Amino acid sequence: MSNEVLVVGSVAFDTIDNANGSVKHVLGGAASYASICASYFAQPAMVAVVGTDFTEADRTPFIKRGVDLNGLEVKEGKTFNWGGSYDKDFNTAVTKFTELNVFQNFNPVLTPQQQQAKAVFLANIDPDLQLSVLKQVKKPRLVACDTMNYWISSKKESLLKVIKRIDILFLNETEARLLTGEYNLIKAGKMLLGKGVKYVIIKLGSNGSMLVSKKGIAQLPPYILEHVHDTTGAGDTFGGGFTGYLASLKNWDTLKSIKRAMMIGNVMASFTIESFSVDRLAGLTQRDINRRLKEYTTMLSFN
Amino acid sequence: MSNEVLVVGSVAFDTIDNANGSVKHVLGGAASYASICASYFAQPAMVAVVGTDFTEADRTPFIKRGVDLNGLEVKEGKTFNWGGSYDKDFNTAVTKFTELNVFQNFNPVLTPQQQQAKAVFLANIDPDLQLSVLKQVKKPRLVACDTMNYWISSKKESLLKVIKRIDILFLNETEARLLTGEYNLIKAGKMLLGKGVKYVIIKLGSNGSMLVSKKGIAQLPPYILEHVHDTTGAGDTFGGGFTGYLASLKNWDTLKSIKRAMMIGNVMASFTIESFSVDRLAGLTQRDINRRLKEYTTMLSFN
Repeated sequence: MSNEVLVVGSVAFDTIDNANGSVKHVLGGAASYASICASYFAQPAMVAVVGTDFTEADRTPFIKRGVDLNGLEVKEGKTFNWGGSYDKDFNTAVTKFTELNVFQNFNPVLTPQQQQAKAVFLANIDPDLQLSVLKQVKKPRLVACDTMNYWISSKKESLLKVIKRIDILFLNETEARLLTGEYNLIKAGKMLLGKGVKYVIIKLGSNGSMLVSKKGIAQLPPYILEHVHDTTGAGDTFGGGFTGYLASLKNWDTLKSIKRAMMIGNVMASFTIESFSVDRLAGLTQRDINRRLKEYTTMLSFN
Repeated sequence: MSNEVLVVGSVAFDTIDNANGSVKHVLGGAASYASICASYFAQPAMVAVVGTDFTEADRTPFIKRGVDLNGLEVKEGKTFNWGGSYDKDFNTAVTKFTELNVFQNFNPVLTPQQQQAKAVFLANIDPDLQLSVLKQVKKPRLVACDTMNYWISSKKESLLKVIKRIDILFLNETEARLLTGEYNLIKAGKMLLGKGVKYVIIKLGSNGSMLVSKKGIAQLPPYILEHVHDTTGAGDTFGGGFTGYLASLKNWDTLKSIKRAMMIGNVMASFTIESFSVDRLAGLTQRDINRRLKEYTTMLSFN
């Protein structure tokens, strides 16, 4: 069994202001967080595009984590740039600028080897591109997909076509409500099951995550931190760890596997939010991860 | 060992509007929810005041649950009346009217037997009254206390005196931030530990509850429900079940006991929010409770 996972999404340079400070032009983008996180559980191959300003040094965190960069296209021009700021609650980022640059014409074309991918994580990109990737992948045994309010508002029909073809959908509370028109998250989740997806995972920010599926529903708390440094990439980390973990399993399609994947997503996100960019996430040891997973299960044990 | 628990607080008639309908003049009040809930785990005695409009029928749910009503004073006049409405999210009640009536001059005087109480739950009332009760109770082995934003704003000094004398403080997110001026809930909880309380329990509404203590921190999810009928009394139920359960233990002062009490608070609150008033809460069987407790621990098990 292969434990490869194809991660398709954005690589960006982020400029961020929050209560803890500010950084300029640091590595970001959903595919960056997701593939680096997935690398602790599986063999990720990243499909993304960067500009000619993306240096060898920018590739270092990926290479150190063994992320396959054959699918990282380099195009003449600048890499996607995003700037945002957070209030002290970190609940919502206020976007200050979005310069799509080479990402504007991102059109992932998979190599014959990538078309054989058994596990796919479609990070938050245009649902038409997600569909295009899905059509190229021959026989995936696991497809997970993230999205955002922008696509729900502007490309709902395409997104619904994606949802029909995937196993796992990640979205946050606001997005679940926006997409379904239903306030109650369990009801919203069930509506999405009716659209053809098997597992709906609602990300609850500082309150963890919720699962809605025909096999069961669950709400799991976060790994709690006293100091949050920056929440950028937390959701992408969650999705990447979740999908990477499942990709490593012989039988991912069980309630037990999905709950463990949620736990891993929650715990891995706790590392990402301890620094700007992937600084903390990219330098973990298996021991760091195991310690938090153990603390997490101890927290939820009543014996 | 006695498993008695003294519950001091309000008994009221509630008039409520929400997305599921409306009710007029139904049994409510923090002490009602708390004592009825505590009755499933311990022997509650309620100290409260009602008017001459409080009928025998109004006493029925208490009597059926074995709540000791010797401390229920009847005063000439009307019972406390509260009216409120909820938006579809149930997150905040909008108060439409508050008629304190006989509750305005509530001044709990404990009988010699009540002064011997080993466990006390001070529901949300004026902190000066909470202090007065604390001075009357001789040697409690467990004192838990709830409060609200109104008292934090208007009687902070008295509330801090209460906090110095109790074991367990319940408050919600907004209140924790208001009381400490600190946004991060772990930091806010630790500041309150510094004020002399042993366990800080932050109620997170539909996201469960959080514990901050020197023995450990934890966040536990709610027992999740697809249909929420009315959230009035959920926090009082949580506190009553929490305290009642601990009152039944020989050694309540351990992390394990506190976490189990949180689980019980979360699960018991799930019953309260399935109906208006105490309709659902007052009619439970041990089997109903055990089933949800088992579902809850199964949800949080990863094996």
